[in-house]
Amino acid sequence: METISENRCFGGVQGVYRHPSKATGCDMTFGLFLPAEAALHPVPLLWYLSGLTCTHENAMTKAGLQAHAAAHGLAVVFPDTSPRGDGVADDPAYDLGQGAGFYVNATQAPWAPHFRMWDYIADDLPRVLFANFALEEDRQAITGHSMGGHGALTMAMGLQDRFASVSAFSPITNPTASDWGRKQFTAYLGPDESTWRAHDATLLLQTGGFDGEMLIDQGSADQFLDLLRPEALAHAMAATRQPGLLRMQKGYDHSYFFISTFAGDHVAFHAQALSR
Amino acid sequence: METISENRCFGGVQGVYRHPSKATGCDMTFGLFLPAEAALHPVPLLWYLSGLTCTHENAMTKAGLQAHAAAHGLAVVFPDTSPRGDGVADDPAYDLGQGAGFYVNATQAPWAPHFRMWDYIADDLPRVLFANFALEEDRQAITGHSMGGHGALTMAMGLQDRFASVSAFSPITNPTASDWGRKQFTAYLGPDESTWRAHDATLLLQTGGFDGEMLIDQGSADQFLDLLRPEALAHAMAATRQPGLLRMQKGYDHSYFFISTFAGDHVAFHAQALSR
Repeated sequence: METISENRCFGGVQGVYRHPSKATGCDMTFGLFLPAEAALHPVPLLWYLSGLTCTHENAMTKAGLQAHAAAHGLAVVFPDTSPRGDGVADDPAYDLGQGAGFYVNATQAPWAPHFRMWDYIADDLPRVLFANFALEEDRQAITGHSMGGHGALTMAMGLQDRFASVSAFSPITNPTASDWGRKQFTAYLGPDESTWRAHDATLLLQTGGFDGEMLIDQGSADQFLDLLRPEALAHAMAATRQPGLLRMQKGYDHSYFFISTFAGDHVAFHAQALSR
Repeated sequence: METISENRCFGGVQGVYRHPSKATGCDMTFGLFLPAEAALHPVPLLWYLSGLTCTHENAMTKAGLQAHAAAHGLAVVFPDTSPRGDGVADDPAYDLGQGAGFYVNATQAPWAPHFRMWDYIADDLPRVLFANFALEEDRQAITGHSMGGHGALTMAMGLQDRFASVSAFSPITNPTASDWGRKQFTAYLGPDESTWRAHDATLLLQTGGFDGEMLIDQGSADQFLDLLRPEALAHAMAATRQPGLLRMQKGYDHSYFFISTFAGDHVAFHAQALSR
């Protein structure tokens, strides 16, 4: 593991690191905020999964999470959203290929060898994190934005008992019924839609849900509402009696200005779940 | 004036606007955060002047000021750092020309026609702001980072009674004695160093100072300490009995991670001064 940069931030350290990943078969870069407490003892870890086109850097510099994480003594990891590099397949579209991993393990050419973001987030990056930093493996929570909100919800439900709590900002809630989903699942997973179900938060709620609280924030003026389908998730949460809440935030859009506005609520929500 | 974008943010609006400027002879772009209160009545205005290479956008997306401004009911304006465009002179160096206006009125070719950032910040942009937004002209404060910290300090002292308070993050404190200053003042103002004095915060303290409180934050691990010369400002503040404080923040560098860490302190400092 290589240190790219470390900056003091809210009494802790905002670092950027690079490591070779077995899951993706290429070097991966991630950001990690460690609060001051991590110098003394291991701290809980909040995962933040980013959306389409993002690298590890966007949320790390624009979401304002560090202030709140420092206040609650939490670490925050900011993974990249896909494998990258010259040897990695890509597509001219912003919503497929590099920057658009969708948190699945691709089974189809040309994506299969590198696009294994599920395994990267579930296994590979945790191994690096817990081996190198003062983090509590048994106290983790997860959040994310848009495609990363989809990732947070599906990984929280797919890896039961891994995360104490899950939240999301304007998540893709029902990708099997959205152009943000059908296109990518067809490309990465192939035409057999039965393989898609494990990657659709709305469908996962109907077959088990999440053993903990969920917090979803969605802007009412989001320019991508038709693709995000919050109504599908709201229906499934209520129909399955999933503990949690979905808040429709009047006038907010899909931007980091929206995320930063509610970042404090989400960190506090996770800190409370992690303190139990 | 043209609206480029408006995003809801912490209950208010983060806007970006473009307008033709008489001072700079070109179109100028600025960011403006208006808190929710501005929908009801005019609000106080905090100026944030940015550093070398920045546009209106960097601090607007990375400094995290909106959270604190919203809490205190303040507006924040994020001006650009220079004139821009195809017809505007430039230099290959990052620290001269576009992105490096240094908040002076250039008198030398090829800079003189457009590089009039002092007049832009002092006269032109205020006219646009107070004509178009619910802002209190008699309640203004100013802050900035690096070159923008220099701008904040020199404009606060040069425009007495304009600003209730001034603060700065890692400011260029003594540009007449720094390579961040001598090079630019020579280019913009010419070799007569007597014309430079009005643009050196340390020298201005010795000839009047600021009628109000100053707050300066400086990281002890700043990679540009030799250029910033905080010791010159500290000496001048103490020697002239200037009310205020300079805080040396252990381990912090020159980045937005530093700014965002102390942004809350600065906004609270200005809010207190503006409430008097």
